[in-house]
Amino acid sequence: MPSELSTVTGFNTLRQIEASKIFQGAVIAIIILSALTIGAKTYDLPPLVEQSLTVMDNAITVFFLVEILFRFAACPVKRRFLLDGWNLFDTIVVIGSLIPLDNSEAVLLGRLLRVFRVLRLVSVVPELRFLINSLLKAIPRMGYIALLMFIIFYIYAAMGALFFAEVDKELWGDVAIAMLTLFRVATFEDWTDVMYATMEQYPLSWLYYLTFIFLTAFVFLNMMIGAILEVMGEEQNAKQAQKAHDERDEIARQLQSVQTQLQELTRQISERR
Amino acid sequence: MPSELSTVTGFNTLRQIEASKIFQGAVIAIIILSALTIGAKTYDLPPLVEQSLTVMDNAITVFFLVEILFRFAACPVKRRFLLDGWNLFDTIVVIGSLIPLDNSEAVLLGRLLRVFRVLRLVSVVPELRFLINSLLKAIPRMGYIALLMFIIFYIYAAMGALFFAEVDKELWGDVAIAMLTLFRVATFEDWTDVMYATMEQYPLSWLYYLTFIFLTAFVFLNMMIGAILEVMGEEQNAKQAQKAHDERDEIARQLQSVQTQLQELTRQISERR
Amino acid sequence: MPSELSTVTGFNTLRQIEASKIFQGAVIAIIILSALTIGAKTYDLPPLVEQSLTVMDNAITVFFLVEILFRFAACPVKRRFLLDGWNLFDTIVVIGSLIPLDNSEAVLLGRLLRVFRVLRLVSVVPELRFLINSLLKAIPRMGYIALLMFIIFYIYAAMGALFFAEVDKELWGDVAIAMLTLFRVATFEDWTDVMYATMEQYPLSWLYYLTFIFLTAFVFLNMMIGAILEVMGEEQNAKQAQKAHDERDEIARQLQSVQTQLQELTRQISERR
Amino acid sequence: MPSELSTVTGFNTLRQIEASKIFQGAVIAIIILSALTIGAKTYDLPPLVEQSLTVMDNAITVFFLVEILFRFAACPVKRRFLLDGWNLFDTIVVIGSLIPLDNSEAVLLGRLLRVFRVLRLVSVVPELRFLINSLLKAIPRMGYIALLMFIIFYIYAAMGALFFAEVDKELWGDVAIAMLTLFRVATFEDWTDVMYATMEQYPLSWLYYLTFIFLTAFVFLNMMIGAILEVMGEEQNAKQAQKAHDERDEIARQLQSVQTQLQELTRQISERR
Repeated sequence: MPSELSTVTGFNTLRQIEASKIFQGAVIAIIILSALTIGAKTYDLPPLVEQSLTVMDNAITVFFLVEILFRFAACPVKRRFLLDGWNLFDTIVVIGSLIPLDNSEAVLLGRLLRVFRVLRLVSVVPELRFLINSLLKAIPRMGYIALLMFIIFYIYAAMGALFFAEVDKELWGDVAIAMLTLFRVATFEDWTDVMYATMEQYPLSWLYYLTFIFLTAFVFLNMMIGAILEVMGEEQNAKQAQKAHDERDEIARQLQSVQTQLQELTRQISERR
Repeated sequence: MPSELSTVTGFNTLRQIEASKIFQGAVIAIIILSALTIGAKTYDLPPLVEQSLTVMDNAITVFFLVEILFRFAACPVKRRFLLDGWNLFDTIVVIGSLIPLDNSEAVLLGRLLRVFRVLRLVSVVPELRFLINSLLKAIPRMGYIALLMFIIFYIYAAMGALFFAEVDKELWGDVAIAMLTLFRVATFEDWTDVMYATMEQYPLSWLYYLTFIFLTAFVFLNMMIGAILEVMGEEQNAKQAQKAHDERDEIARQLQSVQTQLQELTRQISERR
Repeated sequence: MPSELSTVTGFNTLRQIEASKIFQGAVIAIIILSALTIGAKTYDLPPLVEQSLTVMDNAITVFFLVEILFRFAACPVKRRFLLDGWNLFDTIVVIGSLIPLDNSEAVLLGRLLRVFRVLRLVSVVPELRFLINSLLKAIPRMGYIALLMFIIFYIYAAMGALFFAEVDKELWGDVAIAMLTLFRVATFEDWTDVMYATMEQYPLSWLYYLTFIFLTAFVFLNMMIGAILEVMGEEQNAKQAQKAHDERDEIARQLQSVQTQLQELTRQISERR
Repeated sequence: MPSELSTVTGFNTLRQIEASKIFQGAVIAIIILSALTIGAKTYDLPPLVEQSLTVMDNAITVFFLVEILFRFAACPVKRRFLLDGWNLFDTIVVIGSLIPLDNSEAVLLGRLLRVFRVLRLVSVVPELRFLINSLLKAIPRMGYIALLMFIIFYIYAAMGALFFAEVDKELWGDVAIAMLTLFRVATFEDWTDVMYATMEQYPLSWLYYLTFIFLTAFVFLNMMIGAILEVMGEEQNAKQAQKAHDERDEIARQLQSVQTQLQELTRQISERR
């Protein structure tokens, strides 16, 4: 019994430490330090600084490992720890940077994994987590529009690869390259150079580009308007429903009291009969 | 009578097959396969793969023909089959890819018609049909704005062709080319190169470009704002009218009951006179 | 008296002709013909076609003169004819293309005045007039934002001309040229070329460009949001006020009837005392 | 007492002068003159004009000094004068341009301080002050989104500096330069040149650019939509709450009168018992 109690007490202490502002602040500070270390390594540095950065890097790796184990210990239901998306993400990032990598190729991969540590900032700061969650919620809404966009791109890319492949292999060689070129056209990036090149062989090819630009711009614009309206609709409906309910309630209450008064009156009159 | 009944039963079976999820899934799968075939053909492939792609292409053409005949058979009123825009579109695409084409020029055209098969995805997936319908509805709303834009482009193009034709024949040769150049300016694509070239001869020509950019941007912006407002207005009006009606109904019902109570009371009192 | 009457009758006939669909259609057709003539002249044409175009041009000029005189005759209060903005605009365009111009310089000016005839389409088609009027209404709303934008541009241009003039005279020579360069930067047109050039001498000059881009983008974005909100607010207020009024009216009417019933009841009871 | 009264009278006179339209107009005129002087100095001018500009510049400096002292004198609570942001800003600008600067380097700095005088236009015109205040209010709303954007830029820049540094030192040399390059990519400024260069060594690097563009565009779009919704929500809530209150009030008043009538009726009936 006392041992069980001490376990519970120890467990609560763990949770309190985890939830404390100081602990959270320390984690954020270490993540920012880690981000700075990653940034610093992209500069040409004297060997001494380089070495101390590597030492610091390892220290940060150990800290993150300890922190994730600590959070695992503080988790009430161990089996559900990895079911939470943020915990899973943190665990993968931490374990990923633990793998020892020696040859030059792997060093690059190891560094890449360390870069993703910066993303841990998102999982630690609650406001950023909330922001990411609301952004993720916005994705399905755009699903069918994205599919429609893809179909437009695919058809134009197939047409482009069919007709313009001999004009410029680099830009219209196959469907995949043509889709990249069309994305370039959609961002208006030197699109006239692409157009003038094909217009020399096909003088009417400006029709291809103009219809493509109008189509994508039109679909994109309507998608944006749709997104604004949908989000707005949801928010307003929630707010207005609440407000309308409050208003109606007050009037309904007054009417109820009128009805009660009338019933009382009717009762009195009928009693006097 | 039995023969008529069996026809009706057969007809209903046809409709059931057409509406079944498996049938629809198969059609979508074949369309995607067709799209992949079209895409694959833009790559340099070994002759064997090329041949098998051609065989598959023909198989898909036959499948689409069978499918359209099947849908025609399942259509209750045959005369109205082609009046539906989507059916008409499908029929044209299918018949288009049936035409045998032999010489190299026509092969290109034949391929082009096959590209449009991908668009059949839009006519088969109901969500995409709905999306396209709502996009088509948005077009007339922009009609007069588009006309105004065209007038602005035409006037500036006529002015450009008048003054700048001798500066650069390629960009300002005639009204049509000048309109293309202005569209380029409107997308900000290397527009300063165009401007600096004309400013050497007409130092004040920056006025031409700046007024053009401001005019088109201003009209475009107001068009976008207008579109947002209009769609929003329609949706909100529909929702609010419904909600307001519901609310008023409840209060009106309560008031009605108050009035009934009062009438009853008045009747009682006047009876007692 | 009969002469006066006939004048009135003649006057009414004029007005009826002016307002008739056929007359309006004819004017629109002539304007479009005039626009096509202007466009055709920008192409290299055989002398015969060129001559016939000139003849047609003169015929159109005469037609427009007759039309404006006709409209002046149909105007009930002659003094107010030019007070209407659209009439004034039409008169200037028509009179402008009447001035005989012979030498080559003036021919260009004469052609330019003819280009503006296309704008008459706006003054004739009522939907376009309405559109232009609503666009003009949107201008004052953006007045102070435009002033703020101008101040930002001026300050950055003065700073640019102060520091970067020796880097590139063509881009930063004086305040006016620097403002044009900044407009180019604001449209993202090869702005990095401009930046990389100044960064060679002033390595920190990226701060200048980035703050400028953020400032203008931020002000522009807020201007757009503000414009959307303002227009939306106006429309909604008008609609909602009307709807709210209608709803309240119905409930108020019911309540009024309840009060009348109660008064009647009270009267009956007090009578029986 | 008389001396005190005269002080108060003198003080009120000061305030009246400060608040008068003529005084404000004069200040605005001098600021615009000052802006023109700054602009004029960026042109190559004959020595005489240059000298007279310098004289005018000094006169303006003196005027601004007198004006700020005047406003300080007119301020009722002297200690709070600098607590107002606009006063502090004006004082810094005026004192800054007082510092005597002789050597060529310092002349540039002195001129730079004079440029900021144009900003005083914002502090003098009330509408611009209001605009700036409302823009400042919009900043915190975008805080966490800006942080998220920065994290995305930092991670991509670290990855870019890691992989692409050997491709182009000028564009991907270190994290800071890579962030500038990514900002360039985000504005679509010759981003395909950057991409094609890295694709030669890493053929899959288009994935890096496309994911970056989609991520930043998606976050930016949602930020914009969020901003529109938030501002709109605030405005509408305020308006609707007021309107709903007004409506409810009227109906509640009517119901109150019904209840009073009923009470009176009940009283009469019970009296007659």
